[in-house]
Amino acid sequence: MRQAGRALPEYRALRAEGNILTAIGSPELAAEITLQPVRRYGVDAAILFSDIVVPLVAVGVDIDIVAGQGPVLNQPFRSDADLSRLRPIEPDQDLAHVLETIKLLVADLEVPLIGFAGAPFTLASYLIEGGPSRTFGLTKRLMHAEPATWHRLVGLLADICLATLRAQIGAGAAAVQLFDSWAGALSPGEYSEFALPSSRRILEGLADLGVPRIHFGVGTGEILGLMASAGADVMGVDWRVPLPAAAERVGPGLALQGNLDPAICLAPVEIVKAAALKVLAEAAGLPGHVFNLGHGVLPETDPGVLAAVVDLVHEQTQR
Amino acid sequence: MRQAGRALPEYRALRAEGNILTAIGSPELAAEITLQPVRRYGVDAAILFSDIVVPLVAVGVDIDIVAGQGPVLNQPFRSDADLSRLRPIEPDQDLAHVLETIKLLVADLEVPLIGFAGAPFTLASYLIEGGPSRTFGLTKRLMHAEPATWHRLVGLLADICLATLRAQIGAGAAAVQLFDSWAGALSPGEYSEFALPSSRRILEGLADLGVPRIHFGVGTGEILGLMASAGADVMGVDWRVPLPAAAERVGPGLALQGNLDPAICLAPVEIVKAAALKVLAEAAGLPGHVFNLGHGVLPETDPGVLAAVVDLVHEQTQR
Repeated sequence: MRQAGRALPEYRALRAEGNILTAIGSPELAAEITLQPVRRYGVDAAILFSDIVVPLVAVGVDIDIVAGQGPVLNQPFRSDADLSRLRPIEPDQDLAHVLETIKLLVADLEVPLIGFAGAPFTLASYLIEGGPSRTFGLTKRLMHAEPATWHRLVGLLADICLATLRAQIGAGAAAVQLFDSWAGALSPGEYSEFALPSSRRILEGLADLGVPRIHFGVGTGEILGLMASAGADVMGVDWRVPLPAAAERVGPGLALQGNLDPAICLAPVEIVKAAALKVLAEAAGLPGHVFNLGHGVLPETDPGVLAAVVDLVHEQTQR
Repeated sequence: MRQAGRALPEYRALRAEGNILTAIGSPELAAEITLQPVRRYGVDAAILFSDIVVPLVAVGVDIDIVAGQGPVLNQPFRSDADLSRLRPIEPDQDLAHVLETIKLLVADLEVPLIGFAGAPFTLASYLIEGGPSRTFGLTKRLMHAEPATWHRLVGLLADICLATLRAQIGAGAAAVQLFDSWAGALSPGEYSEFALPSSRRILEGLADLGVPRIHFGVGTGEILGLMASAGADVMGVDWRVPLPAAAERVGPGLALQGNLDPAICLAPVEIVKAAALKVLAEAAGLPGHVFNLGHGVLPETDPGVLAAVVDLVHEQTQR
């Protein structure tokens, strides 16, 4: 359950008012925050406490994460000249703090650790829009009007992502997730032309390492098959697409991850449990299924409800 | 093209800093704003300048539309007791200003006028969330936890919408559009149970009037067939779903409306024209097609680009 920690009082106590990038930069603190939801819920894997913009910050892009808003750039990328602001990443130096967090966690954890990175389209959208967007107008303008610049940009980002994920696996991550969080804003034609090639380069560039590769975005019903074709072993599915329909679009040989609606988790526990059982029932015929929410945990979620869901899934799947 | 006016300098000059609800409340001003994009672009229909929250304001709900934010309630709906804040609408009194606008327009226009209303789910989400939402967590909590309250709420909203649309048609609207803008946040199961029945009551309640009923929401790929089944003559499709795929989901007998991506309209004109031609090519095999954008016009769109698109569509479809 991605962002499961942020609904926890012990997380809020630890983070207090501090900047999230500062917390990510402290291996002891980041490891402790990663462990909190594992302890609380007894989930079957841990997901690294970090953020998709961390590798960009690490190569010197001036990004802050503003509470309640998200990643913000004071000087968004506007033209080819801005591409010089992205230098190649040297994970041993640039991500030393993240790799140290992973090593601390692997020594401590009894369950696998999942590392992650943002896919080039989603990262590019933050660089170009200067922050979160509902329309991705500037991003689409650049991709359509200056395709050569666009392809150079996502190529540079793919290099950074691939090196980041390889280093995370080298440090001990047992699986990785590539988040193309906002790819669902693209039409299938746009996704194929402007996002798929760079995501494929990342996922295929991990094949030799033999760890499961999870791929996910929200609102991606129309492009699930294309995203799967980028080289994923597991496709994450949001709550909009029933799992059997997702399995048809994704094709044979892949497992699915999902897809309980995080917003339903705000309802009373019996309703949430019924919804979780429905997900399990829909997953029953699949070749592989990782139970999860269909998107990140909402901060206002009652931890007791999530604990009940985890218990229910364990009880049902151990039968 | 919905919200085509807001990209126009003559619209900004007329509106200046005034509140949009004040402009809607003035028949002369609202009629003039409706006419601006018709004059500028030579489109084949006008869409009434109004807002989906207008009928709620008209029955006394304390909603403001905040520039750059959207509809905002200081006291969101939280429980059954709040339902008493929704009284039945008396269009002749409560919407006298809107009906007067329509009469002015019908006298002036050489093209048909499209009226519209918001569907109960989308209106309820504003009432419950207190403003725009990305997650609809409070809305989903209410629908799942208190289904009786939810169904009473959307029933009251359906009554208001149906009376509103019937009055708009009575005053001269030649077609109506039901906007369930945010229904795409629902899973197919949720849509069927919590949104479809009240939308169906509205659309079927218009059948005797014999005007075309258009139905639209954004991100609705998974529920297009369900939305069509509510009783639409024309289904609006966003840019994510290619028109031939949408036609299959919607089934025979319906026309489609769409689906040029409004974000692509920020690109140079030749790129936008190529994208418009692609929409026309995909629409070629359909039983009926209304060329349109796949969502509202973005405020930063160059009016010259939209004018070129309209000219192109006229040129292509008159062949």
